[in-house]
Amino acid sequence: MSGATLDGVTISRAPQQERSRLTQQRLLSATVECLVEFGWSGATTTVIADRAGVSRGAQLHHYPTRASLVLAAVEHLAELRAAELRVEAAALGGLAGHDRHDRVLDMLAASFTGPLFVAALEVWVAARTDPELRAALIPLEAKVGREMHRLAVDLLDADESTPGVREAVQATLDLLRGLGVANLLTDDSARRTALLAAWKDQLATILNR
Amino acid sequence: MSGATLDGVTISRAPQQERSRLTQQRLLSATVECLVEFGWSGATTTVIADRAGVSRGAQLHHYPTRASLVLAAVEHLAELRAAELRVEAAALGGLAGHDRHDRVLDMLAASFTGPLFVAALEVWVAARTDPELRAALIPLEAKVGREMHRLAVDLLDADESTPGVREAVQATLDLLRGLGVANLLTDDSARRTALLAAWKDQLATILNR
Repeated sequence: MSGATLDGVTISRAPQQERSRLTQQRLLSATVECLVEFGWSGATTTVIADRAGVSRGAQLHHYPTRASLVLAAVEHLAELRAAELRVEAAALGGLAGHDRHDRVLDMLAASFTGPLFVAALEVWVAARTDPELRAALIPLEAKVGREMHRLAVDLLDADESTPGVREAVQATLDLLRGLGVANLLTDDSARRTALLAAWKDQLATILNR
Repeated sequence: MSGATLDGVTISRAPQQERSRLTQQRLLSATVECLVEFGWSGATTTVIADRAGVSRGAQLHHYPTRASLVLAAVEHLAELRAAELRVEAAALGGLAGHDRHDRVLDMLAASFTGPLFVAALEVWVAARTDPELRAALIPLEAKVGREMHRLAVDLLDADESTPGVREAVQATLDLLRGLGVANLLTDDSARRTALLAAWKDQLATILNR
């Protein structure tokens, strides 16, 4: 790595803490890439270390177990995606009402067909039959779920004190998860677009009650 | 197997065709059980043959590849579940309107949290990164999807010529798939029941337009 540059900074001269952070980020990105490309069974720690260009020793130093690496990667990606969604939402400016809801729904739907969803689903399904991974994933699932719900409420400018609104936001996220699974093997975007158009009308009625 | 009895018939005396059918059914049931219990990576052909009490030779005779065995198992279970749903629906008798829709929705939701869903999801996710399995699964996914849609339309007594009804039935199935995934690691039934109660009201409005 000595002499390599990133953003014009010679990594070998960066402080230890900064180098650690970069190593971690490369491992987390490589983990998501390998989960998307090879699935759970193919995304072994060896394959991930190779992809990241990080030694096994350094990998074990930062993430002692496969579970710790994979969970950190899913959490990292969830945070990145939430930040992206907030940036995209800011770009909507003063857009309000039905137009805003439609655009937000498209943005959320994209999250459930992108790499975060695919990587997370690989880990979720593997965790079902892996007690150690499952125990570690359950609190993360709850945290990511809560944050996704809060983000959706914010972006949709939804008032959860109105009866039915909370359930409608939840149903939207569950629907999008189902549409994500339907998109795993084939491009389901035509059907998804038609279905979401109808859902947007439904949602608008509930949110504007 | 000699001398064992099933439904009072001595299997060793059953005709060859009947014995083949029984062997196949044991293999298919064992495949689903192993997928549910051990996940995709643990449900190897050896583990499945052991569970079924069938020799590797007999297994290879009926299902030459892991993909053929797993696909036959998912298709078999989908047919069984569809038949069960029709029997449960028949038991609803003359129940109509909102009451009927509510009960049908509960029955469909149970399908997306039961062993068929879990076994199918294991196969779906594995197929994403396994080209041979993926190629074989895509037509089966389309067939099972069409049949599930038709079944839902029948059971809900839905008129798809009414605008929005077709999309509402599709959204229902996609929502239930999303709820199935949300139920993988933890018992999500309390949240699911509350959410489905709200969706039943929505659906009733659309179906009775």
